[in-house]
Amino acid sequence: MSIKITGTGSFIPSRIEKNEDFYNHEFLNADGSSINSSNEVIVDKFKAITGIQERRYIKPELLNSDIAFYASEKAIEDANIDKETLDYIIVAHNYGDVKHNTEQSDTVPSIASRVKHLLKIKNPKCVGYDLLFGCPGWIEGVIQAKAFIASGLAKRCLVVGSETLSRVVDKHDRDSMIYSDGAGAVIVEESDEDGGIITHDSATFALDEAHFIYFGETNHPDITDQRRYIKMYGRKIYEFALTNVPVALKSCLEKSGHAVTDVKKILIHQANEKMDEAIVKRFYKLHNMDMPEGVMPMTINTLGNSSVATVPTLYDMILKGQLEGQNINKGDIIIFASVGAGMNINAIVYKY
Amino acid sequence: MSIKITGTGSFIPSRIEKNEDFYNHEFLNADGSSINSSNEVIVDKFKAITGIQERRYIKPELLNSDIAFYASEKAIEDANIDKETLDYIIVAHNYGDVKHNTEQSDTVPSIASRVKHLLKIKNPKCVGYDLLFGCPGWIEGVIQAKAFIASGLAKRCLVVGSETLSRVVDKHDRDSMIYSDGAGAVIVEESDEDGGIITHDSATFALDEAHFIYFGETNHPDITDQRRYIKMYGRKIYEFALTNVPVALKSCLEKSGHAVTDVKKILIHQANEKMDEAIVKRFYKLHNMDMPEGVMPMTINTLGNSSVATVPTLYDMILKGQLEGQNINKGDIIIFASVGAGMNINAIVYKY
Repeated sequence: MSIKITGTGSFIPSRIEKNEDFYNHEFLNADGSSINSSNEVIVDKFKAITGIQERRYIKPELLNSDIAFYASEKAIEDANIDKETLDYIIVAHNYGDVKHNTEQSDTVPSIASRVKHLLKIKNPKCVGYDLLFGCPGWIEGVIQAKAFIASGLAKRCLVVGSETLSRVVDKHDRDSMIYSDGAGAVIVEESDEDGGIITHDSATFALDEAHFIYFGETNHPDITDQRRYIKMYGRKIYEFALTNVPVALKSCLEKSGHAVTDVKKILIHQANEKMDEAIVKRFYKLHNMDMPEGVMPMTINTLGNSSVATVPTLYDMILKGQLEGQNINKGDIIIFASVGAGMNINAIVYKY
Repeated sequence: MSIKITGTGSFIPSRIEKNEDFYNHEFLNADGSSINSSNEVIVDKFKAITGIQERRYIKPELLNSDIAFYASEKAIEDANIDKETLDYIIVAHNYGDVKHNTEQSDTVPSIASRVKHLLKIKNPKCVGYDLLFGCPGWIEGVIQAKAFIASGLAKRCLVVGSETLSRVVDKHDRDSMIYSDGAGAVIVEESDEDGGIITHDSATFALDEAHFIYFGETNHPDITDQRRYIKMYGRKIYEFALTNVPVALKSCLEKSGHAVTDVKKILIHQANEKMDEAIVKRFYKLHNMDMPEGVMPMTINTLGNSSVATVPTLYDMILKGQLEGQNINKGDIIIFASVGAGMNINAIVYKY
């Protein structure tokens, strides 16, 4: 028996926010001081580092649970399964439902319950819960689905990663340009085919790293409300990721019994183009290799960083032929990998 | 091999909020109309139904993650384990960290990461995540820990239920008197002893029931901010619970192979005294029995409803001899049971 992903779906919001749309923002340093550059220069530098030209925001009338539902519907259809046969609905997110122009996260009922409600699933034995694990939440959800199936608790799980970061950004913070909205979903189930999930690894670094990504106040010194926004120490995260992610990937691959030359694709969380490239290059350097061309498909240029949604969306787009020059074929070994708030790192070695 | 709870801990906030402390509140109906009774009468009726005389609130300087940490420290000490040997930290909650006098939930990093940070655990292989599953979250966390252990992913897990409902109550809503703060934690691990978790059951009813417990606006018509609070349709929940929880318990017990007469204790989520009694009485009625005296230990009278924290706190208090006339002895069969937002129901049949 293997445990495989048998269907995928994603939802990419229609509203495009281009880099030029930030030209009129008042960006400030974290200490409230002004930045000695024009917005055009700030945005150009931002693009050079992150690779992001544009990102997606959901429409005002939508919620995170709505787009989680849209992606789920597609994954169920793609797997060609009866939705009533699902044993679990696992939704990874970090901020719940935040209504447009409000600041509170709403997670009661759970986003999974809302998705189940919207899917109109009747079967009460289909258990829905939410998983908070920073950006690596979707991969962690797949690992949990694997554990439920392996232990006999479940046969078939829906695992969703859905986030609307546009609802928690500080517009006076340059980092706000990184964040995007999106949702990706997969069906994970027992299969008679070979392959599927071969090995996985998860880790939480919380001793010094717990608050590298956090909820903090605006950079604008004149705004004194207590509202908080997604914030990060970019430099610390970069160093942390470069130190820890390549070795985690190497260890996970070694456990799988596969050689580095077997790896056809690395689907890494779309956090920041330069950081992602540095991670994957270092992974290959640990194997005394250069990074092969095309091994690291990217969507960040046009889709930004939608947290838990980036990896399942990327996977869905490749399988659906929506990413030029990228494909995954029967028997291919791929690695799913992520790093984010917690600080959490995880990876799965998977045979398609 | 069995999977057992080998240590317990809880944190009961020191600040006592008595029913009399609500005499000066302006309570209103959900539609904003006034209630044709004095507050003394309202409070008396409330006490007659819920059994609650007083509840606990955390101090202004504390957060949900702090009390989750306090309970965790005690469980680790009680199990007499090296904290570095934990494979998972699973924290069930619903509202994250809400600072005193603010309205935003903070869940980045996850509460589990914060607990791990406060516990000063170095081992990165100890994975921390948060689980949102309404009030049944702690029981669901124990079920997930069981799955991880059974599937070989883990040997030892810390499972915490921690909630600070005092931070999300609408003071113009009579239901606000139900809610309380608290934290309970256990160590779940492989054991050579017999017993432990025998069977479990979980369910999510989301078709009609998803929004029975929700995040809604204040009852006060003059307050027009968008702030939202924990809200519920009490009557609907009561009917739902009475219809579904007794049969769920019966089904879970049947799977365990134990007779109803083997059951020494039912540790049910402290939601509402009258509702809990009606559930357990109906469970026994399904077996053509009257409810045995003392089978259903209660803490709601003095501790209120602290959501995910009630069941682990109750269990900890009994084991530590803090609940008069209540004890659990080697070989006793007990049932953990909960119902709450989602709407979710779960139960575990457990041999001490």
